[in-house]
Amino acid sequence: MDPSLVDIPPLKDLTIDNITENVHMINSRTPDPRLKYILERLVTHVHDFARETRLSTNEWMAGINFLTSVGQICSDVRQEFILLSDIIGLSLLVDSIDHPKPPASTEGTVLGPFHTHEAQHEPAGSLISHDPDGEPCLVLCTVKDTSGKPISGVKIDIWETDSKGFYDVQHADRDGPDGRAVMKSDDDGVFWFKAIVPVPYPIPHDGPVGKLLKLLKRHPYRPSHMHFMFDKQGYDHLITALYLRHDPYETSDAVFGVKESLIVELGTVNAEQATQYGVKEGSKLMTYDFVLVSDTEATKLREENAMKAMEALGRRMKLYNGLPVPDVD
Amino acid sequence: MDPSLVDIPPLKDLTIDNITENVHMINSRTPDPRLKYILERLVTHVHDFARETRLSTNEWMAGINFLTSVGQICSDVRQEFILLSDIIGLSLLVDSIDHPKPPASTEGTVLGPFHTHEAQHEPAGSLISHDPDGEPCLVLCTVKDTSGKPISGVKIDIWETDSKGFYDVQHADRDGPDGRAVMKSDDDGVFWFKAIVPVPYPIPHDGPVGKLLKLLKRHPYRPSHMHFMFDKQGYDHLITALYLRHDPYETSDAVFGVKESLIVELGTVNAEQATQYGVKEGSKLMTYDFVLVSDTEATKLREENAMKAMEALGRRMKLYNGLPVPDVD
Repeated sequence: MDPSLVDIPPLKDLTIDNITENVHMINSRTPDPRLKYILERLVTHVHDFARETRLSTNEWMAGINFLTSVGQICSDVRQEFILLSDIIGLSLLVDSIDHPKPPASTEGTVLGPFHTHEAQHEPAGSLISHDPDGEPCLVLCTVKDTSGKPISGVKIDIWETDSKGFYDVQHADRDGPDGRAVMKSDDDGVFWFKAIVPVPYPIPHDGPVGKLLKLLKRHPYRPSHMHFMFDKQGYDHLITALYLRHDPYETSDAVFGVKESLIVELGTVNAEQATQYGVKEGSKLMTYDFVLVSDTEATKLREENAMKAMEALGRRMKLYNGLPVPDVD
Repeated sequence: MDPSLVDIPPLKDLTIDNITENVHMINSRTPDPRLKYILERLVTHVHDFARETRLSTNEWMAGINFLTSVGQICSDVRQEFILLSDIIGLSLLVDSIDHPKPPASTEGTVLGPFHTHEAQHEPAGSLISHDPDGEPCLVLCTVKDTSGKPISGVKIDIWETDSKGFYDVQHADRDGPDGRAVMKSDDDGVFWFKAIVPVPYPIPHDGPVGKLLKLLKRHPYRPSHMHFMFDKQGYDHLITALYLRHDPYETSDAVFGVKESLIVELGTVNAEQATQYGVKEGSKLMTYDFVLVSDTEATKLREENAMKAMEALGRRMKLYNGLPVPDVD
């Protein structure tokens, strides 16, 4: 860069008390109002954090080393930063902000770090887990809109662990996806498949996030659950999961994902169902009726909530691509 | 972990409004009061950041990907998280908090990501840069305490770039350290060496931090400077640098490190000095008298500042290993 093009106000002799406003000033030259607002809030919070804790150089360096190790352990099949976001409740919070749910719609929950794009499209009734030690579980679901109308052609991503609590990608010797599938809802909004009963499992805790949990005397377990993700044009993207009632970790999920409305009690397949679905009578049955929110509804609610929250904070804001930015003019 | 050992209060149905207090609750079981306070402030700020920006899932994912790439580009010779901390002013802030300076002592500044532990101990008068294209510069310094008394036996780490603006570790084909040395002050508090005139240079900007600077329309340049780090038992560790007056980036340092008291005007070696120090008459001369703060002074000032800052925030705190924690009893 040609030094003669430096046109920012002088930055010199920055101190504990004036560094923040000066960083804001130099960052405020971006033409993107949303990036500018995000950076302004981010820098303010990071600086306030350091000021409020009187962060020492040793603690700062411990933080640098921690974040570096979080980044370094990430790979194609491991996302330790999502895990970190999960265990400090940020993932749950962001999902709640971005996907507001009107009453009677299905609540969302954390995506977690184990969704992949490898799952195959499978026809209704497919067996999605091939773990011979898993306890068979028939899953019968519907997907409807908030007025109770079935939605056909919804793409549904489903993923669960094997009977030992590991996702396919956690096995170094795997030879393809397992415990996951992509399905489509039929004209009645129905989708169904054969899976295994979910089990509780620890999130990966052999890395830096596991070390942090240990320092905090927290356990790394998630209660038994099965992940579902719903996608259809015109509807708000839904990332959710079903949890099993009476799981030992039902009220202490390491990633804060459990919601009462997402807890299911497993039933038992009766004779008629056994014939209809081609499974053994007496085997486990999971049923759920999912309710999607339309894009229009979700956008309206998201924007209303955003503006209400900004008012509560006393900030004069406007929406820019649906997200708040300062209203300066 | 044995589920029967789960003794935390129930965590379920967490929302935008109650997630923060619940994360605090589960994190508060750590026996370390400082870790507990740091996590409490960290989680509060991260959550408030998400709430105040109404952070979208896409933005969150962009953040996850950004932090991951920052971690992944780190190596033995590159520390991108320190670079990130530098360009948002956090490094300068933490140094200011941790190393308060009474009047008349030498101010500190950012460490930067290029300090190594490879530098050799060199005797007084050594040539520390072997770049044939560098402009020779004689450096004559003293190190004293705040009462003006010379301090002998101070370990001084010095590092600078070559004439092209690169540190030794940035050359893939280097065969050892260059542009850096460790020296000791003599009985008169004097240390001196032969170096090259520092040049302005861009911080590494081919990675994620460089991309962020570009989005923010910021240049990546640092004004010409030479790094110094002082270490002697009984004195507060001093990380500082000397900057050249009239550098084109004097007032727009990408990492906010410039302080008026650290700017030097280069002189010229006279005939007498040329003979005494074995350099050419007329070559460049840099001189500086550094002043170290005693550990006792620094600790007292640090603790006073911490308690004053906590009072100003309206927090009831006490010191724990010299750092503030909530005073709860």
